[in-house]
Amino acid sequence: MNLFYQPRLKEGVLSLDGDEAKHLRVLRLHAGDEISVTDGKGLLVKAALKDDGFVTLEKQTSERSSNVYLFVAPTKNADRMEWLVEKATEIGVASITMVRCERSERKNINHDRLIKMAVSAMKQSQQSWLPEIPPLTPFEDIIKKKFDQNLIAYVDHTNPDHLKKLARPGSIGLLIGPEGDFTNDELTLAAASQWKKVSLGPTRLRTETAALAALVLLNNLEP
Amino acid sequence: MNLFYQPRLKEGVLSLDGDEAKHLRVLRLHAGDEISVTDGKGLLVKAALKDDGFVTLEKQTSERSSNVYLFVAPTKNADRMEWLVEKATEIGVASITMVRCERSERKNINHDRLIKMAVSAMKQSQQSWLPEIPPLTPFEDIIKKKFDQNLIAYVDHTNPDHLKKLARPGSIGLLIGPEGDFTNDELTLAAASQWKKVSLGPTRLRTETAALAALVLLNNLEP
Repeated sequence: MNLFYQPRLKEGVLSLDGDEAKHLRVLRLHAGDEISVTDGKGLLVKAALKDDGFVTLEKQTSERSSNVYLFVAPTKNADRMEWLVEKATEIGVASITMVRCERSERKNINHDRLIKMAVSAMKQSQQSWLPEIPPLTPFEDIIKKKFDQNLIAYVDHTNPDHLKKLARPGSIGLLIGPEGDFTNDELTLAAASQWKKVSLGPTRLRTETAALAALVLLNNLEP
Repeated sequence: MNLFYQPRLKEGVLSLDGDEAKHLRVLRLHAGDEISVTDGKGLLVKAALKDDGFVTLEKQTSERSSNVYLFVAPTKNADRMEWLVEKATEIGVASITMVRCERSERKNINHDRLIKMAVSAMKQSQQSWLPEIPPLTPFEDIIKKKFDQNLIAYVDHTNPDHLKKLARPGSIGLLIGPEGDFTNDELTLAAASQWKKVSLGPTRLRTETAALAALVLLNNLEP
C-alpha cells in the first residue's frame, strides 16, 4: 500500500501537505481509496482518503529499529552523502549528523535535500521511523554527546580492537572521520571525552562505506 | 602510494596498458618514481618506473578477503548496480554475478562498465583482490553452483531464519532476488538445488541494499 508521511499525525493532523499532497495527486488516488500514513516516529495508520484528508482505520506503533547515532564528516561529493542517508535509513539508524571537522572536505550541506532523501527511503522501505537529521554540527559539539557507548573509527595504525569485538547492545554514538582524517587535536579531544577507538578492518574504506558497514554490524549485535 | 592494475603481472608483464597507462600519464609520474601494482589476484608489488615499464622492488601476496559469491538480479536503474559493485569491492567479495531472472527489471548489463567500477574501487581502497564479474548469467545456471552454503534471500512471509543465525564460515553463495521477486518456479528450482531460504530482517530493502548488508554480515562471521 502507498505510504505517506505526516509528522503531525499524533497531534491529529489528518491530511497531507507539501510534497506528500503532491505525491497523492500524482498517484491519482480518490476518496475511499486506502493509504498508509506514518509520522516517522513509530506511528503507522491505515487510512481511507476523503475529499479533504483521510480518516484513520487502524493504528499500529513500532519500536525504533536502530539505536545507532551516526556522526560523519561530509564527503566532497554530495551524492555520496545522499546515498549514505538513503541506505542508512533503509537499514535503520536513529540519527545521521553531518559533522564539521577541521579536515572535512565539505563545509556545508544541503540539509533539506538530505531530509527529503530520508523521507523517500523511509517510505520506499515501508518503515515508520524517520532518522533525525540535524543541521551540520561542529566536531566540538558532537564529542560532548553521551551514549551507552561512544565509538570513533578512523584510519589508525595502532590497530585498535575491531568494532564487532567492542560494541555492546545499547545506545551507540558512532563517529566516522573525514577522508583527510581527524587532526591530532580532534583525536585528543575525543579521547578526553571517552570516545573509544575502534577499527573497521584492514581495508581503507570510503567514509560512507565505513559508516554503512559499521551500521550493519551494530544493528545486528547479539544481545 | 598510487596503485595500478596489471592482471598479467604473474606472467611477467612489467608494464601498464589501456586505462592504467593513461592513468599513469595523467599523474605525470616519471622514471624512478615508485608505484604499487597488483594483479587483482592477491599479488601486490612495489615497483620503480622506468621508461618502458617498471621493475619490481618488493612483492607481497595476500589471501582473498571474502569467501562470499554474490548473485543478484540487476535493478532497473543501472547506477544502483554500479554502486553495488563499488561498495561490495571495497568491503570485499569473491565475485558478483548479475542474474537474469524471470522478473529481472533489466535484461542486459554494461559488463565492461561494471568491471571498470570494480577495478577503480579496488585501487581506491588499496586492495589486491579484484572480484570476478562474469557476464549476465541465467538463473538456471546459477542454481547449479555449489558452495559450502547456498543461501537465497527474498521477500517471504513464512519468516525463515535470519541470515546471521544460519550462515557459517566457509564459501557462501548468496542469491538475492529481483525487486519483483522470484517466480514460484524459480523458488521451486532453487529449493530442489539445496538453496536455503534466509531472511534479512523485517525491513523491505532494495536489492542492492540487501546485497550489501548481507555481505557485511557474512564477511564478519565469527569462526
